[in-house]
Amino acid sequence: MSELGVTVKKDIEFGEWYIQVVLKSNLLDYAPIKGFIVLKPYGYSIWERIKEIADKRFKETGHQNAFLPTLIPESLLSKEAEHFEGFKPEVFWVTHAGNDELGERLALRPTSETLAYEIFSRWVRSYRDLPLKINFWNTALRAEIKSTKPLIRTSEFLWQEGHTVHASREEAEQEAMLMLSIYKEIMEEYLAIPVIAGYKSEKEKFVGADYTLTLEALMPDGRALQMGTSHNLGQNFSKPFNIKFLDKDDREQYAWQTSWGISWRLIGAVVMVHGDDKGLILPPRIAPIQIVIIPIFYGDESKDAVLAKCRSVYAMLKDRFRVHLDDREEYTPGYKFNDWELKGIPLRLEIGPRDVKQGKVVLVRRDDGKKVSVGDEELLDVITNMLEDVQHSLYARALKFLNDHTFSALSYDEFRNHVEHGFVKAYWCGSQECELRIKEETGADIRVIPFNSHDEGEVSYKQEGRCIYCGKSAVKMAYFARAY
Amino acid sequence: MSELGVTVKKDIEFGEWYIQVVLKSNLLDYAPIKGFIVLKPYGYSIWERIKEIADKRFKETGHQNAFLPTLIPESLLSKEAEHFEGFKPEVFWVTHAGNDELGERLALRPTSETLAYEIFSRWVRSYRDLPLKINFWNTALRAEIKSTKPLIRTSEFLWQEGHTVHASREEAEQEAMLMLSIYKEIMEEYLAIPVIAGYKSEKEKFVGADYTLTLEALMPDGRALQMGTSHNLGQNFSKPFNIKFLDKDDREQYAWQTSWGISWRLIGAVVMVHGDDKGLILPPRIAPIQIVIIPIFYGDESKDAVLAKCRSVYAMLKDRFRVHLDDREEYTPGYKFNDWELKGIPLRLEIGPRDVKQGKVVLVRRDDGKKVSVGDEELLDVITNMLEDVQHSLYARALKFLNDHTFSALSYDEFRNHVEHGFVKAYWCGSQECELRIKEETGADIRVIPFNSHDEGEVSYKQEGRCIYCGKSAVKMAYFARAY
Repeated sequence: MSELGVTVKKDIEFGEWYIQVVLKSNLLDYAPIKGFIVLKPYGYSIWERIKEIADKRFKETGHQNAFLPTLIPESLLSKEAEHFEGFKPEVFWVTHAGNDELGERLALRPTSETLAYEIFSRWVRSYRDLPLKINFWNTALRAEIKSTKPLIRTSEFLWQEGHTVHASREEAEQEAMLMLSIYKEIMEEYLAIPVIAGYKSEKEKFVGADYTLTLEALMPDGRALQMGTSHNLGQNFSKPFNIKFLDKDDREQYAWQTSWGISWRLIGAVVMVHGDDKGLILPPRIAPIQIVIIPIFYGDESKDAVLAKCRSVYAMLKDRFRVHLDDREEYTPGYKFNDWELKGIPLRLEIGPRDVKQGKVVLVRRDDGKKVSVGDEELLDVITNMLEDVQHSLYARALKFLNDHTFSALSYDEFRNHVEHGFVKAYWCGSQECELRIKEETGADIRVIPFNSHDEGEVSYKQEGRCIYCGKSAVKMAYFARAY
Repeated sequence: MSELGVTVKKDIEFGEWYIQVVLKSNLLDYAPIKGFIVLKPYGYSIWERIKEIADKRFKETGHQNAFLPTLIPESLLSKEAEHFEGFKPEVFWVTHAGNDELGERLALRPTSETLAYEIFSRWVRSYRDLPLKINFWNTALRAEIKSTKPLIRTSEFLWQEGHTVHASREEAEQEAMLMLSIYKEIMEEYLAIPVIAGYKSEKEKFVGADYTLTLEALMPDGRALQMGTSHNLGQNFSKPFNIKFLDKDDREQYAWQTSWGISWRLIGAVVMVHGDDKGLILPPRIAPIQIVIIPIFYGDESKDAVLAKCRSVYAMLKDRFRVHLDDREEYTPGYKFNDWELKGIPLRLEIGPRDVKQGKVVLVRRDDGKKVSVGDEELLDVITNMLEDVQHSLYARALKFLNDHTFSALSYDEFRNHVEHGFVKAYWCGSQECELRIKEETGADIRVIPFNSHDEGEVSYKQEGRCIYCGKSAVKMAYFARAY
């Protein structure tokens, strides 16, 4: 493979492999400021697919989009004390406009709870105004002090943040759970990445939330990646921000709230989970191009017939699939094969003089490299099935990896051993001290406490639950892992 | 009309009328920082429609979307001196991240030329990389010192900025003109607002451009509104930013560039141009809801039959139109009429017990208030035609207003008199001194120099062209007006 391709093996130098793939496949580029990236058209077109899918599900479930400014006055950001303390170290501050120093510093939105809720408090008067279910597609800005990684940890990122207001605790609980289930569906059905759903621990929850629901995936290096979160905010914000409503009996009540978000990190997860030594592999349901057609001819005598067939195949496919005909003449077919493999297009069609004569087309799958020759009349059916099969195979492979790298531990030695390689399910007494000690000694966090974690049968072999660290009686089973 | 409605007349208190309409129709709200606004779901859904229409046209003409960070280092923003001087007074500056003072100030994007072109210089190597045609949907931040007006002049605004790189001067010229024609199509065909197309004067052009193309509309108070601009940047940026390519003969050349943008200001224009004393009037092609169905019943005996018919009409219409059934029980039909009139929905369907019996539906047009009763079987056809008719009537009315308020002036007295009421077409010698004097004395700018302005016939009666101010031989005919 030429130097244009990826020059390291995914298994051997995973970190360097990731950087080469995201840069060389034209997903993104570095920006002039450290810790910031530019999403190039190819990367952005994947984000547009994810956005389209999520936006449709949000709207189907009664959410509406809106726009909030980027800037939040310091007095507002600091209104919920715990929330402010959490974000303060990473806030970018505007102090001047033109030559004038501002009377009050303005924060670049690290997240919009405080700004949104100040405004919501004016919009909510009565139970008739509820539920209020609003979403914002924007960016969040958080100065990253730790080392950054494109799409996974950057000082500005594309995301959506949903914010809802409800008349009861139960409705807010249901909303937080509904959004988690929509996120899970997007990750599993579209991105082909299996996730573990459940609660964050108190230590790991969103600052200001009653509790945080999370979806966690496992990356090929055995580290966990938080894919999306949904927070039940209780009345923690409605009280300082004074979001009150008159209920049906004319009594004034504080509202109940949720917030939830996913970001371009999902693209980073797709790269890590599905990619191989040749580059990206995109699941067909989110691939901006699902099929690339490559004409193959040597010399002019076959050119016209080959191009004519390519164009007619393109015309046949274009209303059913996202298809691209690469008829650039300044590049060889071999160069194009590598280029589109690097970009992860699920299916490649090769059409040469022999295929024209025989009424056939050669199909090559990106995921396993298998090649078949298909008669023109079967082409539509074969492609339809093959794209579905690629989608499911990618998921199955990722699920097998997750299962093979999810371990149970009943002793701390076992725990230390497994935690190098993936998720470790272990009992935990519930104390933050044990959680902190485990983190210090092994680098592993509690990533997620699964919904059924009170059921002791969750750790795969039966035994009475004892905290993996202190040996005291356990209240919960948790998934531990080192994380991004 | 209740206090929920607009309490002033458009003709009498235009400024106050505008503010009441945008607030009461739920388009937007004020943000906690002066000069900033929040776009509420209803306002945002209109922006989504405009975005969808424009995005489709951009993609059809070979443009791709991408993402750039919000922050631009000062050293980069100042690389093109004239550009920097122009934007400096309005730049928001980030000086701190967390508790740390930054080594270099970071500007919040007032526009992205400098950041984009620093990055483009890495992407462009050869003629094969050209043209590069990229668009960004984001916000621009410019601290407004003058008085602000929602959607028209705010310190942050939603917009798109397109940036292209070409191998020749001619190609860049064609691109700038192509984008202007797409903008004109959106404004006239979708927003139903006629615009005058042409050049900005040297004084009014974009800082850093060779020349700026503009589209100008006339608001009901006789002031002009700049609706969108497209800039031919020549090589003014490619030189300082070092955007060079190897041409087919292997010679290194500086590239040729354009940039162009439209913003949520277009929504403000729709409000001003089409609205009336009852509130908004939305052109059907951009209305998020084109038709609202309102059930009318008194007491329970007719309720079921009326609601059943409303639902079946809704089901019949929903795949062809953007339709909403307002079956809220806590509001009276009268309240709903006012509410949807305020929001500018083009067509209202009323369905009562008599309509159920007679197999009819009552249709009310928002633009002229005309009411017709239509048989169920004709409904689809009548609605299809009526929506088209509303679209065209709104345009025709706006065009008539534009024509009625576009004057020609051959003397300065005539000029002063007309300029209170709309556009004044007048000859101009081309000197900036005359342009400045006219501005000082009358408040009117040169808004646009139409494409055919060398043709002296443009001023409606024949006479040799003499500058309206100094009387010297004129080189151009220009449209003057006071402006937002």
